[in-house]
Amino acid sequence: MTTTGAGAMTPSGSGVQATTHGYHKQKDEHLKRLRRIEGQIRGLQRMVDEDTYCIDILTQVSASTKGLQSFALQLLEEHLRHCVATAAIESSTQGAVKGGAEIDAKVEEATQAIARLLRT
Amino acid sequence: MTTTGAGAMTPSGSGVQATTHGYHKQKDEHLKRLRRIEGQIRGLQRMVDEDTYCIDILTQVSASTKGLQSFALQLLEEHLRHCVATAAIESSTQGAVKGGAEIDAKVEEATQAIARLLRT
Amino acid sequence: MTTTGAGAMTPSGSGVQATTHGYHKQKDEHLKRLRRIEGQIRGLQRMVDEDTYCIDILTQVSASTKGLQSFALQLLEEHLRHCVATAAIESSTQGAVKGGAEIDAKVEEATQAIARLLRT
Amino acid sequence: MTTTGAGAMTPSGSGVQATTHGYHKQKDEHLKRLRRIEGQIRGLQRMVDEDTYCIDILTQVSASTKGLQSFALQLLEEHLRHCVATAAIESSTQGAVKGGAEIDAKVEEATQAIARLLRT
Repeated sequence: MTTTGAGAMTPSGSGVQATTHGYHKQKDEHLKRLRRIEGQIRGLQRMVDEDTYCIDILTQVSASTKGLQSFALQLLEEHLRHCVATAAIESSTQGAVKGGAEIDAKVEEATQAIARLLRT
Repeated sequence: MTTTGAGAMTPSGSGVQATTHGYHKQKDEHLKRLRRIEGQIRGLQRMVDEDTYCIDILTQVSASTKGLQSFALQLLEEHLRHCVATAAIESSTQGAVKGGAEIDAKVEEATQAIARLLRT
Repeated sequence: MTTTGAGAMTPSGSGVQATTHGYHKQKDEHLKRLRRIEGQIRGLQRMVDEDTYCIDILTQVSASTKGLQSFALQLLEEHLRHCVATAAIESSTQGAVKGGAEIDAKVEEATQAIARLLRT
Repeated sequence: MTTTGAGAMTPSGSGVQATTHGYHKQKDEHLKRLRRIEGQIRGLQRMVDEDTYCIDILTQVSASTKGLQSFALQLLEEHLRHCVATAAIESSTQGAVKGGAEIDAKVEEATQAIARLLRT
């Protein structure tokens, strides 16, 4: 991940390539993770259907929620890294004021997403 | 739901019937809810696949987590109601000491399940 | 705790005594726990005042929140145990229908409190 | 807040001044917020002491936890904004590779803090 972030900072075009490459690697991980969660949700349906003991169903719900949160945290980390990199490039090429406003907007948007995750 | 809880208290066999009937009605609701969540998880996979903007994916994750928590809360409510009814019958037929221990064990188990939900 | 719950079921007056005794023991624990959390909140004020590094402040916030949740869970466990005991006595002395309605109301109230804890 | 972020980007010394000014304004808000939470915790002690109904205590716990989370989110927003600004300055003055590594470390640290908040 460090390489991706560093590559994105490079002023040359190769930075974009590195980002895309890193992104695709993550994409497969994300999809694998989400398919596992989908399997857990189908497992929950089976448990309800077979009248499994409530407490055991609740344990499986906790596991699925934990899976979703890990996915959200990884996505958020990538977003912060990427948003940081892009906003930093903007601010150094477009001047401090415009770059600063861009960063502020991105940070506010990310904070609101974190707030939504916390409140669920 | 009140009828189910009250029915479960009846010492006659009809109490079991009332519980089963109420349970089946809930079961359909549970399965419908879980199928909706499964659809949301598949939606997340599509979003990742189509490179949807991170923040929008995080919003969908929050919605899915909220759905799972609502399902857990409904299940927990039914469990508390049912566990209360059963433990109450135990305590009135088997005497206070054994009934009390039964209730204690059930309450501890439920509290641990709530703790797991809180920590995710 | 088992003794308290069992004691509360006893139809004689000694049940009330046992409950009160158990309650007082818990009360001291609760107050001690809350004073520790109060100390943590004052610690947070000192950290902000001394310009402590943000991430270290956030770690302390997590510790305080965890403390509050443990307190809430212990309180909830006692409440479920007590509400179960009282509602069970009601249902055995006042008949199934009224006792069932009483249990339903208590369980709904408790579930709503758990929902509020989950959403924060 | 936008001014603070933008000010921090300025390569001249005035950026530091603007940051400090903005920080002090926030500091008072933080301390006021924390004193309010401290009052809520003392209120909880009074409630326990006066044998207030469990469910009402739990409602107050939810309010205090919500207060702590709002404080954490505001702190996090400032941190992301500040860390972004500082890491951006580093990366533009020290070169992409070192700046990228600096950003990566900061983002990872922030994500771990968010994970701790989510798990409580």
